[in-house]
Amino acid sequence: MEEDKIDLTLDEVRTALETGNVLDAIAALIRLHPADRAEAFSDLDDKDQAVLLPRLDIPVMADLLEELEDDEAADVAEVLPTERLADVLDEMEPDEAADVLGDLPPQRVAEALAEMEDANEVIPLLGYPDETAGGLMTTSFIALRPQTTALQAISFLREVSPEEETPYYLNVIDRDRRLVGIVGLRELVIAEPDTRVETFMDPNVIHVSAETDQEEVARLMVRYDLAALPVVDPDGVLMGVITYDDLMDVLEDEATEDIYRLANVSDPDLSIDSPISLSVRRRLPWLYLNALTAFFASWVISQFESIIAQVAVLAVFLSVVAGLGGNSATQSLAIIVRAIALGELEMDEAWRTILKEAAIGLLQGIFVGAVAGFGVYLWKGNAVMGLVLGLALLGNMLVAGIIGTLVPVGLKALRLDPALASSVLVTAVTDSVGFALFLTLAVIFLPHLR
Amino acid sequence: MEEDKIDLTLDEVRTALETGNVLDAIAALIRLHPADRAEAFSDLDDKDQAVLLPRLDIPVMADLLEELEDDEAADVAEVLPTERLADVLDEMEPDEAADVLGDLPPQRVAEALAEMEDANEVIPLLGYPDETAGGLMTTSFIALRPQTTALQAISFLREVSPEEETPYYLNVIDRDRRLVGIVGLRELVIAEPDTRVETFMDPNVIHVSAETDQEEVARLMVRYDLAALPVVDPDGVLMGVITYDDLMDVLEDEATEDIYRLANVSDPDLSIDSPISLSVRRRLPWLYLNALTAFFASWVISQFESIIAQVAVLAVFLSVVAGLGGNSATQSLAIIVRAIALGELEMDEAWRTILKEAAIGLLQGIFVGAVAGFGVYLWKGNAVMGLVLGLALLGNMLVAGIIGTLVPVGLKALRLDPALASSVLVTAVTDSVGFALFLTLAVIFLPHLR
Repeated sequence: MEEDKIDLTLDEVRTALETGNVLDAIAALIRLHPADRAEAFSDLDDKDQAVLLPRLDIPVMADLLEELEDDEAADVAEVLPTERLADVLDEMEPDEAADVLGDLPPQRVAEALAEMEDANEVIPLLGYPDETAGGLMTTSFIALRPQTTALQAISFLREVSPEEETPYYLNVIDRDRRLVGIVGLRELVIAEPDTRVETFMDPNVIHVSAETDQEEVARLMVRYDLAALPVVDPDGVLMGVITYDDLMDVLEDEATEDIYRLANVSDPDLSIDSPISLSVRRRLPWLYLNALTAFFASWVISQFESIIAQVAVLAVFLSVVAGLGGNSATQSLAIIVRAIALGELEMDEAWRTILKEAAIGLLQGIFVGAVAGFGVYLWKGNAVMGLVLGLALLGNMLVAGIIGTLVPVGLKALRLDPALASSVLVTAVTDSVGFALFLTLAVIFLPHLR
Repeated sequence: MEEDKIDLTLDEVRTALETGNVLDAIAALIRLHPADRAEAFSDLDDKDQAVLLPRLDIPVMADLLEELEDDEAADVAEVLPTERLADVLDEMEPDEAADVLGDLPPQRVAEALAEMEDANEVIPLLGYPDETAGGLMTTSFIALRPQTTALQAISFLREVSPEEETPYYLNVIDRDRRLVGIVGLRELVIAEPDTRVETFMDPNVIHVSAETDQEEVARLMVRYDLAALPVVDPDGVLMGVITYDDLMDVLEDEATEDIYRLANVSDPDLSIDSPISLSVRRRLPWLYLNALTAFFASWVISQFESIIAQVAVLAVFLSVVAGLGGNSATQSLAIIVRAIALGELEMDEAWRTILKEAAIGLLQGIFVGAVAGFGVYLWKGNAVMGLVLGLALLGNMLVAGIIGTLVPVGLKALRLDPALASSVLVTAVTDSVGFALFLTLAVIFLPHLR
């Protein structure tokens, strides 16, 4: 496992640094894969990092900034001398360089750009948010003309290769730089040397605009198994390319975002390594919102205080009705949120999904209500109490199926994130409805409950 | 959007089929991308599908079986004549063919294999579960010898290309078929024609065994930005390769699994398109488990029935204590489950994470407890009632932070899925502890509550 390797290397690095052997420390770090190296580096304390940083060479620094988490990369970039920072940014992929610059103060960005050689590749990327196609794409791509032969294309790749990272897909553009096709490196390799690119390129290129959200980018690339997705401007001019390695990070980010939002954690960057104060600041607002809805639900109960004073055992079962309703709604919610994320739910057919989840809720209510009601009869020896609980569960689960679908679909229709606040809103409804149903039924059957 | 394109095509197909123009219907389908075509096909009713199936040619059938959902692909494979099925399976990628065979009855599998030409590529894959490296890998890969020159390798690729799908990474194996290196197609293309593969291959190949779980496969490929991951046997012999297109599906599946499990939906294959009866069958057991824990929590309340009979307003606030505790625990749970899935949590340092989440819980308890307690004072005019609620919230949120971490970490330590049943277990604790704390405090402060 890589964790053991990282721990061993960290021991080696720390021992070397204690005895002043910076070169040995660097040699130990270099032996690691760049991804592991970045993790090891960020596990070192600030003093050790400060000793190492000036001694790492430019390509190693570039790898480091590409692999570190955004905030740590910004911290490192912050302390580098401007000239060195510019060299490192030149060495990095333009999209990664733009991400680093995006986290630096404007003054520092201007200084670094002024010193950079490839600033022109990075500047167009600075305007796009990280989560859009423009923020994900690299501008360092290779483009061929349709008339080029396979042999010419391969010699061209050999010439430019030390400069640019050759991607596995090559874009084909016309004289106005408009995207007209795409060619896989493998089609190029197996083509007869003197055939023209246009004869074996794929002219039906799936592409996006720079403003496209990363969620849509991910959906397209997964749906069509794309290793690269070109980004074009409104005239069809090729602006950049998104590659599969960026996609993998997007898929993980989007999954984290959905999981967090369903659990009412709104900041997808929170992790077990976040400072406690930040975690509390980001998580607290949702608990306050939840407190508000919880107080609304308790206001519902307070309307029935007098009956509870008469039949205290009702208080015992309130949480069963609310809890099971909430749980049933959460199941619907998770399935709907995921279906929306994967593009499986068509909004014009959403009513069908709502009906379906309502039917599922009703059936679950019948099964759970029957068993729970019978359980209460056995426990308390009161059949009417069991009936009241069973009916309340049935009603609440029907509501749960409907509201668990309606809330995310509604948020999506309003162009909001369907996972955002969904669970607070949904459980607010299942709690309040559950309490009201159960206690209203109790009022109706009161003579048989005492 | 592709949905519009699919709907238009479906109209065309249905119109053509009504007038008996099967060829027109097929022509309309063929114009779609295979992924969209599969979706359109599965939207057709059984009668239309049955008319089309015998008329689709082998490569189209192969695409269709690769793109359809597993259960739909099995339905189609079930009705094909054996000889035709064998031809289609031969045309498919071996890993996809094995997936289809895995869903068919044994008798049918044996018949199909007997008719297949490339059965030897598929048979070794049948033994591995879908969710392991063995189930994901393809056995149709190209391997080079270290002594081959770049030029020889490229001519070799040209020769074999129509047969095998050339991957972007080529494996290098010794005479015992042991994996000794890997070469990207781009390194091959830009290498001087007469240099040997061993001089520019990467000898440090990250690889897995056939039993490796797909979650670990995904973690490695994302961490190291791999487009291909070789699978080797215990002697280092190359068995197959997992490619990035399989990885993308795995990443989505794993995210769906985590989201569903946190919401107590245990079957990751459930979707909005699943039959109602299946949804109910798969979701109901968790609701029954939840009912059990809910009844345990209500048993806790029942121990305090007499004090509730005296101070009925206590029943009003029970759900606030339990709900907020549950919500706070769910936040911790989501962050821990995600950290475990992404390999960020090291088990030997888990105690540190538990302490941290406890601290976060305590702080959230102080902030939420203070505000909620003050709110109760304003609402009910009873400061002691506010104090009781505030203290109960504080205690319950501290417990929430600990239990929200302890449960997934404990499940992981037991080599179970950390997301499985976590939320039921966690809320069972926060409910019961919340009720017990609040009502015990109420007993202590009883003289001031009446």
